[in-house]
Amino acid sequence: MNFTVTPLGSGAAAPALGRHCSGQLVNIGGCRLLIDCGEGTQEQLRRYHQRMQAIEAIFISHLHGDHVFGLPGLLSSMHLFGRKEPLDVFSPPGLADAVRLFFAASATTLQYELRMHEVDTEAEQTVFENAKCRVRTFPLYHSVPTVGYVVSESDPQPGLRVGVREQFGLAADQIESIKRGADYTDSQGTVHPNAELLAPPRKAKSYAYCCDTAYNEAIARAAAGADLICVESTFANGMEQLAAELRHCTAAQAATIAAEADAKQLMLTHFSARYKSLDELLQQAQTLFPNTLLAEEGKTVAV
Amino acid sequence: MNFTVTPLGSGAAAPALGRHCSGQLVNIGGCRLLIDCGEGTQEQLRRYHQRMQAIEAIFISHLHGDHVFGLPGLLSSMHLFGRKEPLDVFSPPGLADAVRLFFAASATTLQYELRMHEVDTEAEQTVFENAKCRVRTFPLYHSVPTVGYVVSESDPQPGLRVGVREQFGLAADQIESIKRGADYTDSQGTVHPNAELLAPPRKAKSYAYCCDTAYNEAIARAAAGADLICVESTFANGMEQLAAELRHCTAAQAATIAAEADAKQLMLTHFSARYKSLDELLQQAQTLFPNTLLAEEGKTVAV
Repeated sequence: MNFTVTPLGSGAAAPALGRHCSGQLVNIGGCRLLIDCGEGTQEQLRRYHQRMQAIEAIFISHLHGDHVFGLPGLLSSMHLFGRKEPLDVFSPPGLADAVRLFFAASATTLQYELRMHEVDTEAEQTVFENAKCRVRTFPLYHSVPTVGYVVSESDPQPGLRVGVREQFGLAADQIESIKRGADYTDSQGTVHPNAELLAPPRKAKSYAYCCDTAYNEAIARAAAGADLICVESTFANGMEQLAAELRHCTAAQAATIAAEADAKQLMLTHFSARYKSLDELLQQAQTLFPNTLLAEEGKTVAV
Repeated sequence: MNFTVTPLGSGAAAPALGRHCSGQLVNIGGCRLLIDCGEGTQEQLRRYHQRMQAIEAIFISHLHGDHVFGLPGLLSSMHLFGRKEPLDVFSPPGLADAVRLFFAASATTLQYELRMHEVDTEAEQTVFENAKCRVRTFPLYHSVPTVGYVVSESDPQPGLRVGVREQFGLAADQIESIKRGADYTDSQGTVHPNAELLAPPRKAKSYAYCCDTAYNEAIARAAAGADLICVESTFANGMEQLAAELRHCTAAQAATIAAEADAKQLMLTHFSARYKSLDELLQQAQTLFPNTLLAEEGKTVAV
């Protein structure tokens, strides 16, 4: 299954140095999810040829402006450009009233159903699920209530063990029956138990988004085994004290989380405007977790 | 006195075709005023090298998203980048609560004083005045309560008539005294009345911003004599019916307003995304009002 992440914004706090506010488009088997929606996200979607109307749900990590001030505009443009499909928006508590007041002030009645959901910021929770994916929250450690999101494939369908189809000359309906759990009785009357026919399903792939947050060892447990983990790296090494005060991570802390989570690949994002070049942050993370890349706006990464 | 307007956004409804949401920076003798603040305005300010912290006050025409969704982000960035000076924001009623809820949701306490003012949308009103300029509102005719803004120079200081200084050999303190209204008694004891010494003050220059609005003849009266008038031209000619339904102007209607106001120059803005090229709108307006130009983002126009 196609499973990709396209960063739309990689900057911290405010647009600067050509980097935009936080936003990422996740495409999992054609199901498109938006994570965070800083100011300018609708324009970034357009710039990178991502159709806003194809977005099925939006997930907000926390209510700092650089993660959410693009939401009213995106919701409004979806309306203006004719959206009819309902839209689910998940966020920590407090967003719905502000958004609704903005729309009330401009006498805007959305022509689609906007379903705002408050997520629990203290406990893990599966908040979204369809045939292609599920999305689970977990607590992060920032200056306001914040959650991370794990997007995983829905349980991959088991397939026949290699050679089974040919061995018994199975027809399509027989294969479907076995995939649904049935045993198979061959022409000699021998019953072959389902477990001998089906291969164990492969592990569902997952993407973990951890932004914004200070370092905390619990993050690795929540994101364990992620094929791709995105951890904020607002600061370079040497800025640990400011990072702790502002509840952000350094590059080394991001790499430590990725290593502890036993993730396959790490993507850094949410870079402070003090860093014109990001080479330093990349190198510092790679020292601890070699398979690290920088979030580049518009550059799609496979999970 | 330097008096210019820099369009930051010239599109209608949503960013498209490289055109951004509404916003204009007015610079009048170094006093910088922002009119409207659609999503992306803070980034447009940066793109065109206009310091956000130099803005002394913000004027919102109406609460449709494309004129106001950039405000929380701009206010937030002013805070993050260290603003200490108070900021006045003028708008039709209903904006303050939505902005405050957004900041409350993110536990943001601005480190400068934000003074939100509600303007009367039914009557003309002088809302802002300092040594350099004054700003007056007037009603517009849109689908929600909307005001236009006239920015004018404060009353220009009168100067001495040509030759008076040399004729009497006036010192600086004598000139100041005459400018404050005193007569002058020469060495022979002859009294020269003030009116014979001072030239009549020149007319204060003014800029009128009319966006969004349907055509209404009252607009020309409110903006009468503007050196530059900016009128929205969402649609080309032939779209009068849709323009009337949506309470917008066509190019010809914009030109009619400029002509009726006896303005010196017309700037068109707020172009529908249906027009990739704007030549048609410009030509249609110029047929009725030759001294017309299109708002071009980042291109500063002298008033």
